[in-house]
Amino acid sequence: MNIGLIRVLTLSDQKEIDRHGLIIEGAFSGLKVRSRCIEDHPKGLYDKISEEEAKPKIISLAKELRKGVEAIIVSCAADPAVKELKEILNIPVIGAGESLASVSRTLGGSVGVITITNNVPDPVRRGLGERYLTWKKVEGVESTLDLKEGDILARTLNTATALRKQGSNVIALACTGFSTAGVAPKISKELGMPVVDPVLAAGSIVYNLMLNKECWREDVED
Amino acid sequence: MNIGLIRVLTLSDQKEIDRHGLIIEGAFSGLKVRSRCIEDHPKGLYDKISEEEAKPKIISLAKELRKGVEAIIVSCAADPAVKELKEILNIPVIGAGESLASVSRTLGGSVGVITITNNVPDPVRRGLGERYLTWKKVEGVESTLDLKEGDILARTLNTATALRKQGSNVIALACTGFSTAGVAPKISKELGMPVVDPVLAAGSIVYNLMLNKECWREDVED
Repeated sequence: MNIGLIRVLTLSDQKEIDRHGLIIEGAFSGLKVRSRCIEDHPKGLYDKISEEEAKPKIISLAKELRKGVEAIIVSCAADPAVKELKEILNIPVIGAGESLASVSRTLGGSVGVITITNNVPDPVRRGLGERYLTWKKVEGVESTLDLKEGDILARTLNTATALRKQGSNVIALACTGFSTAGVAPKISKELGMPVVDPVLAAGSIVYNLMLNKECWREDVED
Repeated sequence: MNIGLIRVLTLSDQKEIDRHGLIIEGAFSGLKVRSRCIEDHPKGLYDKISEEEAKPKIISLAKELRKGVEAIIVSCAADPAVKELKEILNIPVIGAGESLASVSRTLGGSVGVITITNNVPDPVRRGLGERYLTWKKVEGVESTLDLKEGDILARTLNTATALRKQGSNVIALACTGFSTAGVAPKISKELGMPVVDPVLAAGSIVYNLMLNKECWREDVED
């Protein structure tokens, strides 16, 4: 099943552009991801202005990707243009932010959100609803690029530890840069609690579409 | 990864008890499901009284299953005892109802819910939030047992068609008896839209926990 994926960080190396798609393909057998990135956002999206600037570019890319895919993932926790695209396109369009919220709220009763900016992305806050507990920004981080620094695992772990002390029983990583950095499994192992990765959360939601295809189920029938 | 699963329909044949677990194991490689069912509910749960009667039994079974599993799924769209168990147990407890809502709301903007009773289960309604559009009961059905009748696919398809006409772009099947009947893929294919199966939705949420284990990711790293 072919999925389109839009990166909101401008990258030149196709291997880098493909990274989130490769993470999904590695985790969900049968999904094939085609990735594209928007132009002129070398720091990704980090505030309302950069999000608004990116929206028309995301919509344009999604329309191009539409041909030949059965769903589109917008790989950003702020879900830029996702609401608009759900109305424009006649295939499912899934934001990493809403996916993160959906998975996190279902895995636990009190979700702590880790951010890279001084606010919780709207779709994450809205999707968590009554299961939202609290949030905390990783110290010293201003954009997704900073999540590549050497000590980012230690700093994110510190942030998660603080959220656990405040009563969180699930950690939601509210930037897809955390997926690129691959920190979720390490923090989960260290703290012994679920840590939800936004790219994998989006993959797990999209995977339900593949399970809508009948063939896989023949093994189960008797 | 071992998962516990609680059936709220009393069954004597372990193969029948295992059916939802087998569906999850077939769809999510690496998950191993141990299933148990509650006693004295031969028609499953179908109203507030039967739900309240079942709650202490579900809590008791969950405590027994707790040993040796890393998460527990309560396989009922009404999520009986799920709120209580999330507080009592120190592992994730996942309801099929909240999972159904989480997956459905993320796949589309306007969710139509198919029920077996004259109301939408609370966790489904609450989880869908602003993306809830409408609901409809399958004609002639009173409990999960009725979902085994020969023409149930045709009747569920009629219900889904009506919901689509009202503007639904995703169908949520709000009873795990629909999972036993395996109707989701057939209706999805017929209508060309996502149809969310509650047992598979719960599986897809739980699968995020398995992805928290680091080993699978080695393939992706370069």
